[in-house]
Amino acid sequence: MVFWFNSDRERGRVFAEAFARELPDLPLVTDISEHDPDEILYILTWTAPPDLHRFRNLKVVFSIGAGVDQFKSEILPPKVMLVRMVEDGIIRMMQEYVTLAVLALHRKLKAYVGQQADAVWQSVPVRQAAEQRVGILGLGMLAGAVIERLKPFGFPLAAWSRSERQVEGVECYHGQEGLTPFLARTDILICLLPLTQETEGLLDARLFETLPAGAALVHVGRGAQLDHDALIAALDAGHLSGAIVDVTEPEPLPPEHGFWRHPKIILTPHIASVTQPETAARAVINNIKRHRDGLDPIGLVDRERGY
Amino acid sequence: MVFWFNSDRERGRVFAEAFARELPDLPLVTDISEHDPDEILYILTWTAPPDLHRFRNLKVVFSIGAGVDQFKSEILPPKVMLVRMVEDGIIRMMQEYVTLAVLALHRKLKAYVGQQADAVWQSVPVRQAAEQRVGILGLGMLAGAVIERLKPFGFPLAAWSRSERQVEGVECYHGQEGLTPFLARTDILICLLPLTQETEGLLDARLFETLPAGAALVHVGRGAQLDHDALIAALDAGHLSGAIVDVTEPEPLPPEHGFWRHPKIILTPHIASVTQPETAARAVINNIKRHRDGLDPIGLVDRERGY
Repeated sequence: MVFWFNSDRERGRVFAEAFARELPDLPLVTDISEHDPDEILYILTWTAPPDLHRFRNLKVVFSIGAGVDQFKSEILPPKVMLVRMVEDGIIRMMQEYVTLAVLALHRKLKAYVGQQADAVWQSVPVRQAAEQRVGILGLGMLAGAVIERLKPFGFPLAAWSRSERQVEGVECYHGQEGLTPFLARTDILICLLPLTQETEGLLDARLFETLPAGAALVHVGRGAQLDHDALIAALDAGHLSGAIVDVTEPEPLPPEHGFWRHPKIILTPHIASVTQPETAARAVINNIKRHRDGLDPIGLVDRERGY
Repeated sequence: MVFWFNSDRERGRVFAEAFARELPDLPLVTDISEHDPDEILYILTWTAPPDLHRFRNLKVVFSIGAGVDQFKSEILPPKVMLVRMVEDGIIRMMQEYVTLAVLALHRKLKAYVGQQADAVWQSVPVRQAAEQRVGILGLGMLAGAVIERLKPFGFPLAAWSRSERQVEGVECYHGQEGLTPFLARTDILICLLPLTQETEGLLDARLFETLPAGAALVHVGRGAQLDHDALIAALDAGHLSGAIVDVTEPEPLPPEHGFWRHPKIILTPHIASVTQPETAARAVINNIKRHRDGLDPIGLVDRERGY
């Protein structure tokens, strides 16, 4: 029985070392051409290989990323577990990126970058943190970790989730009926939702209109959640004041796209959070041990719900 | 006996309201032309008025800013107390700005802003926080507050101060002999020193050379502490990787200065931290009450030391 590491060579070296140390009885293979498909017990991969049905003893597919929307559910047999990547490196990088993005919008960094290009020395009015209401779409592990970093700055915090949740120090909204009041009180909106049928296209013109005038967006969910044209229109109309966007549809974004040179957008190439091989190897090994002990892996995807 | 508010009208309104409520027996005046100089007990001002000797009963000069280097010590009679502005608004804004600056350098934001202008979708190598050593020059109230915000991100933290100090979770260096080892272990250097004869010109070519290759600078002290040409040279030579500069000499910086369009510099117009009238009024009122009770005001300047 083997673990198929279906990802890049550099990460593979880190994983192979950790597996040899921690799971010496489970060989990690990167080339399965000489293995019987029945030997494959676990796969770590970005997307499901199309011939997945060949691996009749497959138990768990580990996603290399935090999202699993790239897995087409019809390909994965129901008995195979799908596991999101939940590892310290991803979490810490997301905390850094979102804190950076919220502070950059709060302190009008893009305006100063623009003034710098024009050699203009002039202060731009800013709010105090206590008057800057931050709201997070999504309340999973990443959102919880981001909230911990934002709290000390004193921003009034709220979060919206599909089902009811309670988080200390955070005004919690949920469900369809909770979305409008949540948006209406949010000056800086952070999208940390997984991509599902329900969240596809969620960030549209109507959603932007529901935000108060001058609101801003941090988008670190998935590109397909965002109506790109609606964002540009809301910024150009002056209703939104700025946006920091890390995910787009498609990726890479074509060079002629309006996000690149928009004076109110900071665009980064899907780098908010990247799986770190050392901590990811530890997380996968821990999950294999859990699976052997009959426990659910951490990050197990509810196939019905899609995350 | 009166309090002379020698600053802008907008802040003055906030102060006047707070004084009327909290110190009804101490009139706040903005125009002293009809007052006997002997009536002036306290002054809030940015710089010392040249005819300060006229105010024979003057007890305390409150600076409107956190720094007091703009006060020429020869003008202030020794018996008059000089008090720095220590108020929550200044502290919170400095925490925001420095966290923003450190995260921007850590996550290579300026490189991404440059790539955005050229429509380049490409990730830039970054370090993990545990490998990004942050060092703070200065260990006063602002530095302590900044450290509290940086700690949770997991950066290895160090600080340097003139005299010996201990701060939990921070590697503390001090004195002339502590400066070189402090710099040699610092990847992101934050200058939060007051401007004194000793710190003038401190950030020079030799200091930059002592930093490890690829180090970066956050300058929120005073412009006169920085050898501007040496910074540009160190960036252009590739020894330093980036700088975020909020204070320059002179201010405003002339339009032809090399900082404006430097690809590795983010320049902001002395906005890191600005006195907030509400919290500043509270701080000054509290200090007047302390003074009446025979206590030292918070932020009392050691005239010998200069801060």
